[in-house]
Amino acid sequence: MDASPAPFSAAEYQRRLALTREAMDRAGLDLLFVTDPSNMHWLTGYDGWSFYVHQGVIVFPDADPIWWGRSQDGNGASRTVWMSQDRVLRYADWYVQSLVRHPMEDLAEHFLAMGRGASRIGVEMDNYYFSARAHLALFDMLPEATLVDATGLVNWQRGIKSDEEIAFMRKAARISEKIVDGLLERVEPGVPKNEIVAEIYGDAIRGVDGVWGDYPAIVPLLPSGSDAAAPHLTWDGRPFETGEATFFEVSGCYRRYHAPFCRTLFLGKPPQDILHAEAALVEGLEAGLEAARAGNRACDVANALAEPLERAGITRGARCGYPIGLSYPPDWGERTISFRAEDETVLEPGMTFHFMPGLWMEDWGLEITESILIRENAPAETFCDRPRKLFVKT
Amino acid sequence: MDASPAPFSAAEYQRRLALTREAMDRAGLDLLFVTDPSNMHWLTGYDGWSFYVHQGVIVFPDADPIWWGRSQDGNGASRTVWMSQDRVLRYADWYVQSLVRHPMEDLAEHFLAMGRGASRIGVEMDNYYFSARAHLALFDMLPEATLVDATGLVNWQRGIKSDEEIAFMRKAARISEKIVDGLLERVEPGVPKNEIVAEIYGDAIRGVDGVWGDYPAIVPLLPSGSDAAAPHLTWDGRPFETGEATFFEVSGCYRRYHAPFCRTLFLGKPPQDILHAEAALVEGLEAGLEAARAGNRACDVANALAEPLERAGITRGARCGYPIGLSYPPDWGERTISFRAEDETVLEPGMTFHFMPGLWMEDWGLEITESILIRENAPAETFCDRPRKLFVKT
Repeated sequence: MDASPAPFSAAEYQRRLALTREAMDRAGLDLLFVTDPSNMHWLTGYDGWSFYVHQGVIVFPDADPIWWGRSQDGNGASRTVWMSQDRVLRYADWYVQSLVRHPMEDLAEHFLAMGRGASRIGVEMDNYYFSARAHLALFDMLPEATLVDATGLVNWQRGIKSDEEIAFMRKAARISEKIVDGLLERVEPGVPKNEIVAEIYGDAIRGVDGVWGDYPAIVPLLPSGSDAAAPHLTWDGRPFETGEATFFEVSGCYRRYHAPFCRTLFLGKPPQDILHAEAALVEGLEAGLEAARAGNRACDVANALAEPLERAGITRGARCGYPIGLSYPPDWGERTISFRAEDETVLEPGMTFHFMPGLWMEDWGLEITESILIRENAPAETFCDRPRKLFVKT
Repeated sequence: MDASPAPFSAAEYQRRLALTREAMDRAGLDLLFVTDPSNMHWLTGYDGWSFYVHQGVIVFPDADPIWWGRSQDGNGASRTVWMSQDRVLRYADWYVQSLVRHPMEDLAEHFLAMGRGASRIGVEMDNYYFSARAHLALFDMLPEATLVDATGLVNWQRGIKSDEEIAFMRKAARISEKIVDGLLERVEPGVPKNEIVAEIYGDAIRGVDGVWGDYPAIVPLLPSGSDAAAPHLTWDGRPFETGEATFFEVSGCYRRYHAPFCRTLFLGKPPQDILHAEAALVEGLEAGLEAARAGNRACDVANALAEPLERAGITRGARCGYPIGLSYPPDWGERTISFRAEDETVLEPGMTFHFMPGLWMEDWGLEITESILIRENAPAETFCDRPRKLFVKT
């Protein structure tokens, strides 16, 4: 069973840093302050559940990154980042959730002490955990600096996965398959929903064949019947019932890498409208997989999916896919490209997506999805290998 | 097995709304825009894993609150909030993670259409999920409005728990006890850590005696040996080893209410320094529980704990407690009061805290903690009932 430290090679981290520095240069940034935990991990290897307090990584054009965070979490940084110990900066605990001080005051003092008080500093203004107050505190403390919106700057560098990353996602996909196999086996009328969730977590965390499972960035979602019209309800203790469809939105996770995978199970005999939707959705998925190849655009996948659905009288308002890979709660998406009509981003080999054309109708829902890898001259490869259909237990 | 909708009585929601409106009035706010998912739930009952996109609740002085969020999540809001359906506002999916539009543009248009464009609007500038960009987008779209920092305004109203809330926390505490009993039983040298985490989730989600388990706002934390110096590392697939202490930081959760509970297990014969720390810590906990009573201040608990620890030569830098109750990831704390020397907040009956004096030393860690309820004329009541000690398996 493989152990913890340093998930990736030194060369891989250097590749990531080089991409980020090029993007900083294009954006005219002297420094970049990264607060999105996924971006922090991608750049430095930092892994810990500490993103509920202010923390971040400072990226320099010409020196190793610095991890900055709460004093007690410096111990976790020392154990997980590839940089040397002097690249870990800790702020005192009295800044934490204080009513009179803000941790960004400590960060600003570091910038000033480094002689960087008049820099152009990129900040992730719409990434997770960089609050409006954090922004204003930095702004107030660094009157000579220019704070530049660098939302998504690092996320865009993460789009094309290295072979090392794809290997992690393949492991996550084995766990995803195990989860779905288990729930299809176990769900029966009368079984309380939380019992099934307990088994899903068991499969997810035990993992497969010596691959241990990490926590997914989103909890299992499994609404039934008319509640399946609402994509993000979580579970309770009520039993599964005959005559209802339940979609299962789950992901295996290996060292923070995900392979989301959704299937739907109907208990009993499905009504015609659901079977009708299933046929159109499967046709749309297959057309979308065909369109999801290097050189095509994100919108080509969305349009390929839409055609058979519209023929069947189904109009979806929502996007039907997003990039995936490394992530932390609250989302397993990368928040860059969206499979939607207006997104003309050109797909490149090595990009990975959750192709996610969920149907959330008036009083039922249907999810059949695939995590995919974009290839040259071929339809997308699916990370998981299970029948692409509505499962039925009568 | 109890089911899902409307966890609390109408009177309870009216109590919460009245407290919030009084606080708005004191702060001179015409409107309050609440984005912290815990505050959204506390005020309206809204429950769903949708906080990865922009959403919020608008609180009015003189009308029912409005839930505002992504189109597809409106279905979840319709199913969980106590307000009527016309108090659910949905924005179109093309705003989601768009490169050209921001969801706050939709919100601002609602404020303008309501004739509220020149209001004093409270925003939670340092609560979770209100990004710097969200703030600027509102600021740009509402040139006549005044955006006022209302960080923690609702959180402070949540401090004193109702009997209904305390009943939920007692259920969560039964689950916390079950988790700790299970892991003390199962952890042995050689057992991979992720296997134990799978069992922890099993106990947490299955729940106890017909009480189903919800997902805790923080994943189980269980670092061993020298890694236990780092409080927020998560697990991997390595086995437990003889000669190491592992602390287990876990919480049962019932309908988003928590009762965090930590115990430490040593495999083998504990060294003198850990036993020495255990004795001082238990003495400090007992002194702290004695001090944690209505009329005393938050700092009195911290000082009571510190005295025996300092006598034993242990200086803690970190705060030793925070309020708990309803929560969503990434934190199960309420982010108001802190048990620390400088916090002079007076304790009141019905307040609930995680009294959390974790010791994170150079090369080991020790956590023995209690979730507590403040009472009049008596030491704090502990929600869980298990021996307050270092557990040892030889």
